[in-house]
Amino acid sequence: MRTVRIGIAGFGTVGQATASILASHQAEIAARCGAVLCVTAICRRSPIASPPFAVKAHRDWRELVASPEVDIVLETMGGVTDARALVATALESGKPVVTANKNLLAAEGEALMKIADRRNVPLGFEAAVAGGVPVIRAIAEGTAADRLRSVHGILNGTANYILTRMEAGVIEFADALGEAQRLGYAEADPSFDVDGIDARDKLAILARLAFGGKVDANAIATTGIRGLTAIDMVYAAKLEGTIRLVGAAEKHADGVALTVRPWLVSHRDLLAKVEGVNNAVILEGERAGVQMFYGPGAGGDATAIAVLSDLMEIAGDMASGRLGAKPTAGFRETTDVPLCYQPPPVAWYLRLVIEDAPGVLARLAGVLARHEINIDRVLQEPNLDKRRLPFVITVEPVSEPLLLRAVAELDRDPAVKAPALPLRMVAME
Amino acid sequence: MRTVRIGIAGFGTVGQATASILASHQAEIAARCGAVLCVTAICRRSPIASPPFAVKAHRDWRELVASPEVDIVLETMGGVTDARALVATALESGKPVVTANKNLLAAEGEALMKIADRRNVPLGFEAAVAGGVPVIRAIAEGTAADRLRSVHGILNGTANYILTRMEAGVIEFADALGEAQRLGYAEADPSFDVDGIDARDKLAILARLAFGGKVDANAIATTGIRGLTAIDMVYAAKLEGTIRLVGAAEKHADGVALTVRPWLVSHRDLLAKVEGVNNAVILEGERAGVQMFYGPGAGGDATAIAVLSDLMEIAGDMASGRLGAKPTAGFRETTDVPLCYQPPPVAWYLRLVIEDAPGVLARLAGVLARHEINIDRVLQEPNLDKRRLPFVITVEPVSEPLLLRAVAELDRDPAVKAPALPLRMVAME
Repeated sequence: MRTVRIGIAGFGTVGQATASILASHQAEIAARCGAVLCVTAICRRSPIASPPFAVKAHRDWRELVASPEVDIVLETMGGVTDARALVATALESGKPVVTANKNLLAAEGEALMKIADRRNVPLGFEAAVAGGVPVIRAIAEGTAADRLRSVHGILNGTANYILTRMEAGVIEFADALGEAQRLGYAEADPSFDVDGIDARDKLAILARLAFGGKVDANAIATTGIRGLTAIDMVYAAKLEGTIRLVGAAEKHADGVALTVRPWLVSHRDLLAKVEGVNNAVILEGERAGVQMFYGPGAGGDATAIAVLSDLMEIAGDMASGRLGAKPTAGFRETTDVPLCYQPPPVAWYLRLVIEDAPGVLARLAGVLARHEINIDRVLQEPNLDKRRLPFVITVEPVSEPLLLRAVAELDRDPAVKAPALPLRMVAME
Repeated sequence: MRTVRIGIAGFGTVGQATASILASHQAEIAARCGAVLCVTAICRRSPIASPPFAVKAHRDWRELVASPEVDIVLETMGGVTDARALVATALESGKPVVTANKNLLAAEGEALMKIADRRNVPLGFEAAVAGGVPVIRAIAEGTAADRLRSVHGILNGTANYILTRMEAGVIEFADALGEAQRLGYAEADPSFDVDGIDARDKLAILARLAFGGKVDANAIATTGIRGLTAIDMVYAAKLEGTIRLVGAAEKHADGVALTVRPWLVSHRDLLAKVEGVNNAVILEGERAGVQMFYGPGAGGDATAIAVLSDLMEIAGDMASGRLGAKPTAGFRETTDVPLCYQPPPVAWYLRLVIEDAPGVLARLAGVLARHEINIDRVLQEPNLDKRRLPFVITVEPVSEPLLLRAVAELDRDPAVKAPALPLRMVAME
């Protein structure tokens, strides 16, 4: 049986987990893919005191890519500049690449996929979105024959952990974040996760895969979860729902709208069941109907299993002399609708904190009326502090930019004591 | 671009939906897989008055398989005998086959996979389990590097529709079945769906794929949903759960246990959210963690999208000269545990209908005690009819065969007016 040699660039959590599983499951992996996979080289900046196995340790990724002892390059360095150079160099030299790097793919996915296609070399990235959920395969292969209507889901496990903790404990954002940091789920600088940037990068990859076209991740309207408070969890429960940070790519008349923001989802919605650090992606196809894919969003082992699904497929093809770029695994090349960043009208939850006084509600309602936004319900939980009175207005469907213009005007009202918080509402029954 | 010609044997709902999508999405499908797919021949017993397109219509499947104008055979005839002969003949002659036939694969999957391997020809069956959910790919490829602990899920949409209707309307089984039949979700003879036979066949395919080994579908302990009554839905709700028909393959110390039976699942469980005719499969891997795959269980279009995922992959490989059996897509060949049919101990819900009289409960509790089964809770809803009093006993973990022996003894008690109904309990909190 042919041996396929893997060089791992960036030997961190995912790289090490991949090497560990390769070592402990070697016989099964060989039986299942028809090739013996082994790690022959690694490269990382900081030297390893005691490498867990006999491999060549490079200090420069160029050596690893050029090494005649490396058949497939696994890129787990992270970042964009070096990773881009490494992946491009490897593909140009005809070496297959597997990467778990969502930043890289969000920024450079199209360019790298073009090199892979031109050189007829596979580029695997199953692990780049929703680590432990094989959603790349589901879009690229499972629904390849369909026209998709939408792809949306919970794409960041850290933010989802914080939201489920805020709900379960009815605690504030800062407290739930602190807890996530103590448990190692959130970084010291949590911006990437809680401000929606990570979800935005993953959405860009999914949207390109699902709808084709050119996606500028930086142009996606992105709102994180910092503005949420414990009282929002109380109101969400009153509305028989819960709050989730959702990345969505939705086809409508004018194109495909891309947004990342918190949604108020009904308890009956599948996304409401996704708790803790898990991810879930929902595909809606014209013919396939609604599919959901759920699993751990991150973690070394779960991500390594996704990395290995790509490595095994490529190694199997190498062993049987069938290596080549996979057309169905690339970004869809055909799209009949432009990508855009303006979502269609939806219903909204709007939480305000006001200093209560006669006429305030009428004045705020007047602002909404001037923007031609229709109020659906007004909810107010009992509260003793009349100087900081939280209440909720739900409004009938209106597009996000229109709503945000009205919100900006509300925020300028002297009675409004905290920025109004909008949540997109879905499937409330 | 190369044209790949498809012959469809059995031109029913799925065959027609596949042809329809191929016709309407031809350009996208070609762009995505690198080959133009077209249907050049069909074969079915009853002649078609007006074929929707110009194809050769055969009356005998042998002609279709032998036709030089057919590159890939799509088998959607159903049944086992003819389908087996057709698939075997096509594979032996070196023609790739795609099938949606779960009966065939449950009965003959290993033999057919062996022919495919020997002849180095692909055999695709993504559509055979959970039609609109790409779970075959998820097990065969997504988690190929992992050791799985369990595969379980809702594998029959008709039974799930009946259960969700019984719950929503608090109606009896017969009424929900009648409704399903009027809507076309259930056959005039519903046995295949409601007695768990269809779920059992799908479980056999999943278990073989996940754990290897030889699976005799007929040996799987299978209980359907006919014994359920509206009162069970009331008690399930009282226990903060709902009832689902679950097929499960679970690795434990003695082997992999295979069962199909109704479970009482907590409202917090992912399976509780699966409503109507949908399916869901949950994989638990040592490293991958828990993944769930959800989507429509059947329906011509959803199944056709799954069929097309296989056809596109095979056609793409043909066009690029890379055709061959896919090792990772075959049944796992390595297993360190035997398949068995004895599940590990679990907690149970036991619903009895008794004629109430002094001493009856003590006597029935005595039966359980003699079988060394510990009672956890006794629940009884107010009921006026003392001659047919339903109540529920939940018991601590005990294996299914032990429980069923105690149940048989309970059923012999003269005060017991209807067969005791056991439900496996999971994740109740």
